[in-house]
Amino acid sequence: MKIEAEWMRGGTSKCWVFETDHLDETRTSLDELLPRLFGSPDSRQIDGVGGATSTTSKAMILRRPAEADVDVEFTFAQVGIEEAAVDWGSNCGNCSAVVGLYAIEKGWVIPKGDNTRIVTRNTNTGQIIIQRVATPAGALPIVPDAQMPGVAFPGYRVGLGFQDPAGKTTGKLLPTGEATDTILAGGTRWTVSMVDAGAPVVIVRAEELGLNTARYDSWVAGVELQLETLEHIRRQAAVRMGLAPTPAEAARAIPKLAIVASPTRSDPDCDVNVMMLSMGKPHPALAITGSIALTLAAGTPGTVLNGITGDTPRPTLRLRTPAGVIETWSEERDGSLLVGVDRTARTIATTIIHLPEALGSAVEASLASATQ
Amino acid sequence: MKIEAEWMRGGTSKCWVFETDHLDETRTSLDELLPRLFGSPDSRQIDGVGGATSTTSKAMILRRPAEADVDVEFTFAQVGIEEAAVDWGSNCGNCSAVVGLYAIEKGWVIPKGDNTRIVTRNTNTGQIIIQRVATPAGALPIVPDAQMPGVAFPGYRVGLGFQDPAGKTTGKLLPTGEATDTILAGGTRWTVSMVDAGAPVVIVRAEELGLNTARYDSWVAGVELQLETLEHIRRQAAVRMGLAPTPAEAARAIPKLAIVASPTRSDPDCDVNVMMLSMGKPHPALAITGSIALTLAAGTPGTVLNGITGDTPRPTLRLRTPAGVIETWSEERDGSLLVGVDRTARTIATTIIHLPEALGSAVEASLASATQ
Repeated sequence: MKIEAEWMRGGTSKCWVFETDHLDETRTSLDELLPRLFGSPDSRQIDGVGGATSTTSKAMILRRPAEADVDVEFTFAQVGIEEAAVDWGSNCGNCSAVVGLYAIEKGWVIPKGDNTRIVTRNTNTGQIIIQRVATPAGALPIVPDAQMPGVAFPGYRVGLGFQDPAGKTTGKLLPTGEATDTILAGGTRWTVSMVDAGAPVVIVRAEELGLNTARYDSWVAGVELQLETLEHIRRQAAVRMGLAPTPAEAARAIPKLAIVASPTRSDPDCDVNVMMLSMGKPHPALAITGSIALTLAAGTPGTVLNGITGDTPRPTLRLRTPAGVIETWSEERDGSLLVGVDRTARTIATTIIHLPEALGSAVEASLASATQ
Repeated sequence: MKIEAEWMRGGTSKCWVFETDHLDETRTSLDELLPRLFGSPDSRQIDGVGGATSTTSKAMILRRPAEADVDVEFTFAQVGIEEAAVDWGSNCGNCSAVVGLYAIEKGWVIPKGDNTRIVTRNTNTGQIIIQRVATPAGALPIVPDAQMPGVAFPGYRVGLGFQDPAGKTTGKLLPTGEATDTILAGGTRWTVSMVDAGAPVVIVRAEELGLNTARYDSWVAGVELQLETLEHIRRQAAVRMGLAPTPAEAARAIPKLAIVASPTRSDPDCDVNVMMLSMGKPHPALAITGSIALTLAAGTPGTVLNGITGDTPRPTLRLRTPAGVIETWSEERDGSLLVGVDRTARTIATTIIHLPEALGSAVEASLASATQ
């Protein structure tokens, strides 16, 4: 049995891109089929297409829905490595960037103008992501030339735009109703901003923490010394935002915590310096959802981030992370706000994967359930 | 630019298999082309087909030579990961196993009988390797079902046979003229056998080292305590075999050293227990060349290994290593001896790799020089 797939890089991930129709032909459960195609269970995935790391053991499953207002519907699959299992629980921001490019390369969407818009829906989260692929003069460039931090080679520029992202979790951009609040932690009062856009985030100023932000290594070292206080702030913010009844019951990953600082004078290439804490530790980069939240916070008068970036409306916001500068963009259109971030994507290979043995033949509902 | 390639597993490696003609069409130096296709330089090879480990950053380049007595000529390329460079210096035994399968799958060789023979020549080493692919009733099985240690899934059985391997380095199977010799090291006289077949190997009995070979972990622990003595033995053997003028000048990798022990009574599945030392440390498995040398040593009256396996001629020899049992086979045909070992191989995907940018256009002599 042979299965068509495109092998694509999306952002800093590699993913295998399938069409629902081709997978359906195998009449095999995706929870069984994908691990076998990837060579799982095997820590090296030596007999399959998987890359034996979490960022290279990913699949995207695409289809063209019947509705006229969505161009592509897609499902993300995190394929287990040592386990023959698939996690359907979340979407992958990096892999999302392959969808718009795929739609253009396959002729599902005809390029139009300098930026071609593709309306996509992720079935794992229900989120609509409007993708903007750079198509100067109405075509993909012959040689892709867009760069992004963390990737050594150029690709095609793909913007991932989140439509009206404010309040998706709590119902409000400012869950407490205030642009800034005071939180008591470690015997000190901290001035923070709590925003919900893309993801709930609590924002703290590096200045208040007494951090030296001139260099990331000294900044990281300073953060490491105050992790306990920062976790206190985060857990109290969880309660204030209505995400947990008590600090002790706050989730480990929600809200996220961002430490922000003014750019140094010698750095004209950014509007703000950012360090995110992920699972209690300084993170070298910034998830797409986190960058969306910071963008809306910057544009909201009175937040601690707005105090750094100022009130002038700006079409882009440049956030410097240890891994490099992330640029977000905002646009209003037909009364709704689109906030996004750019990634690059590229097709590495057009492939036909060989599936050696017949697997269980039960037509399974895994994809169907994931798309509900 | 797009380039056809098959992605194949050979033994415990994954390799990208190209045809010379397809690569020539790119009019690009292979030393420049292969790293770019693989996504190098980049420790993650995220923008290319490489797997970011030494066993998954390999290429094989195949062609059908004009001579009637060789079916396939092949060149192995170890593609750098953090460096945009290619090492053409050696062959890879695991990847070699893809060549016979490729020849049958592409119709270069028509299967005949239960085992189809493919005569291959490796250009890195000049070695002729006669491959035996299992083709019951004259065809590849529909579902590959051969297993091998270290690989979780079945593949097609491919035997790699080395023709008249004795004395390729020193001119003689027994470089000292004796089946056993005495070497003085660490104040003790050791009875060893030195053979040259596939690779030069010095063989020591575990019994003489006082090792407890009932379990591999106690065996390893015992070897770790005597590494210095074993290195003395190996360096003196280098001199005796004519490979180095003095022990101090002996190469780090040649000769190899093998420690052998009788099988335990409870293990009917092997003829001998083996532990190889590689670069001065116990190795979990056995390189193909090492298994060839041990096979000839077992068949040579008077060697320390022959003392374990006995004099009865046997068509196969089963060597137990920590990673599993390796079975070698020997056959005489038309007055020459073929000694081989089986691997499994499988095509993972048939692909067209996208090369995004034009590379330097100099038609380079890298492959030409590698094939000289």
